[in-house]
Amino acid sequence: MPDLAYVNGEIMPIERAVVPIEDRGYQFGDGVYEFVASYEGRPFMLEEHLDRLERSMRELAFDPISRADIRKAVLDMFTLSGYPRAGIYIQITRGVAPRNHAITPGMTSQIVMTIRPVKEVPAEKRKKGATAITVQDTRWGRCDIKTIQLLSNSLAKQKSLDAGCDDAIFVSDQGIVREGTSSNLFIVSGGRLTTHPLTDNILPGITRKVVMSLCTDVNLDVQESFFGTDALLAADEVFLTGTVTELLPMVRIDKKSIGHGEVGPVTRRLYDLLRKKAMAGGGTT
Amino acid sequence: MPDLAYVNGEIMPIERAVVPIEDRGYQFGDGVYEFVASYEGRPFMLEEHLDRLERSMRELAFDPISRADIRKAVLDMFTLSGYPRAGIYIQITRGVAPRNHAITPGMTSQIVMTIRPVKEVPAEKRKKGATAITVQDTRWGRCDIKTIQLLSNSLAKQKSLDAGCDDAIFVSDQGIVREGTSSNLFIVSGGRLTTHPLTDNILPGITRKVVMSLCTDVNLDVQESFFGTDALLAADEVFLTGTVTELLPMVRIDKKSIGHGEVGPVTRRLYDLLRKKAMAGGGTT
Repeated sequence: MPDLAYVNGEIMPIERAVVPIEDRGYQFGDGVYEFVASYEGRPFMLEEHLDRLERSMRELAFDPISRADIRKAVLDMFTLSGYPRAGIYIQITRGVAPRNHAITPGMTSQIVMTIRPVKEVPAEKRKKGATAITVQDTRWGRCDIKTIQLLSNSLAKQKSLDAGCDDAIFVSDQGIVREGTSSNLFIVSGGRLTTHPLTDNILPGITRKVVMSLCTDVNLDVQESFFGTDALLAADEVFLTGTVTELLPMVRIDKKSIGHGEVGPVTRRLYDLLRKKAMAGGGTT
Repeated sequence: MPDLAYVNGEIMPIERAVVPIEDRGYQFGDGVYEFVASYEGRPFMLEEHLDRLERSMRELAFDPISRADIRKAVLDMFTLSGYPRAGIYIQITRGVAPRNHAITPGMTSQIVMTIRPVKEVPAEKRKKGATAITVQDTRWGRCDIKTIQLLSNSLAKQKSLDAGCDDAIFVSDQGIVREGTSSNLFIVSGGRLTTHPLTDNILPGITRKVVMSLCTDVNLDVQESFFGTDALLAADEVFLTGTVTELLPMVRIDKKSIGHGEVGPVTRRLYDLLRKKAMAGGGTT
């Protein structure tokens, strides 16, 4: 059961996987990605991830890659690795050309993947809740496209760890709460859920969408609207959603307890529903 | 006289130069760069470029690389290529590690370079002036660090070419004129020059600094202050500054003529002074 890499059709050990230095992903951040996880050997929400990958490529006018080819490569990687709970990282860049800000015509999109066991969120964090700091959102203006320009995300994540917390929450210059460094964010106040609307400033999360649909299934009121740090810190419950994050309670933000400082009933209920859906191989795949 | 690449100490043809797919430059945009040009075989302002490279690395807390080693490698590349008018691209990334937003301790910075003849701005553009469009500044919040997160820059440049122009000028959400896609911007109004102050939102350009110092030398009034698109379009002269750009007049912006729509006297004078300094091997090298 090996960790594996895939580079433009060829499968190999990760240590052997290389790309040209003039790949535009390396010199311009000109690439997009997805991360898909499996449960008991079945990739969860694969078609939704492929939808988003195709949208990202379209938004940046990349040379298309056949969806059937990407799907086949992903499924081959899951099968070859043999990991029942695997995470596959898929990155597509615009292509390779002598360095130039202008886009050289006729480039061929480059695709690389890696597969490894999913690094689970520690059980302790799921049980007792995690902690976060808020940070200024210094990311670029098109966070709805899942690009590899992730330096703000990485620096914010590291800053939260250095502060003894688990993650960072991006807040705009105007005080609007956006999302986590690799997750969307929901607040629960008076039994009602709120999350940031789908704009250029957040990722259209797949787990976000699944959670919203679960809310509808069980008659939980969920709305998409803007809110500030005051509403965040005053919420009864706060949780993050994401492929690896799943649905993670945040019980302390900027050193202030959220609600009673423990995992709340809405968060727990939705987490159980999400896990059930995932273990049942839910989604379109 | 070949084009060459350099990868962590080894020199090779560019086509053979590769990096691991888990280099953080490829997966997180976690890298910085410089571009140095030579005139008649002498690199111009090399120490200033090395200063800025070191600052970029410090700001991102990269594992340091000896300045003497970088300088030696750069000079070796200039010598080996043999090009009298060469452009050397230097990129340093944080290192290689299994993909993780958090920064893995103990990573070793990776350094790559390429050297090729400088792609000169066409003589026609220097003589008659170039044209630009303005675009919304969608870049991240730390443009003072010269990172490889250049997707906004690349897309804006391409958009300007698609519109039949030569470059794009970034304007903030609040209407403040920032800079070009790979250059700083000056306006001349009533004989006085103005350029954007050094904040997190623009690159501390080396040519910008040289031009400001040339202004002082010849008693031209130059100030650093914010201005909007109205002031830009109403200016007598507008020019961009950069290592390859040198000092390039912009005579038409958003389809509106700047001044009389031709290269102005202040622009011409400063360009001549800059060229003289460059050809004399000016700067600290």
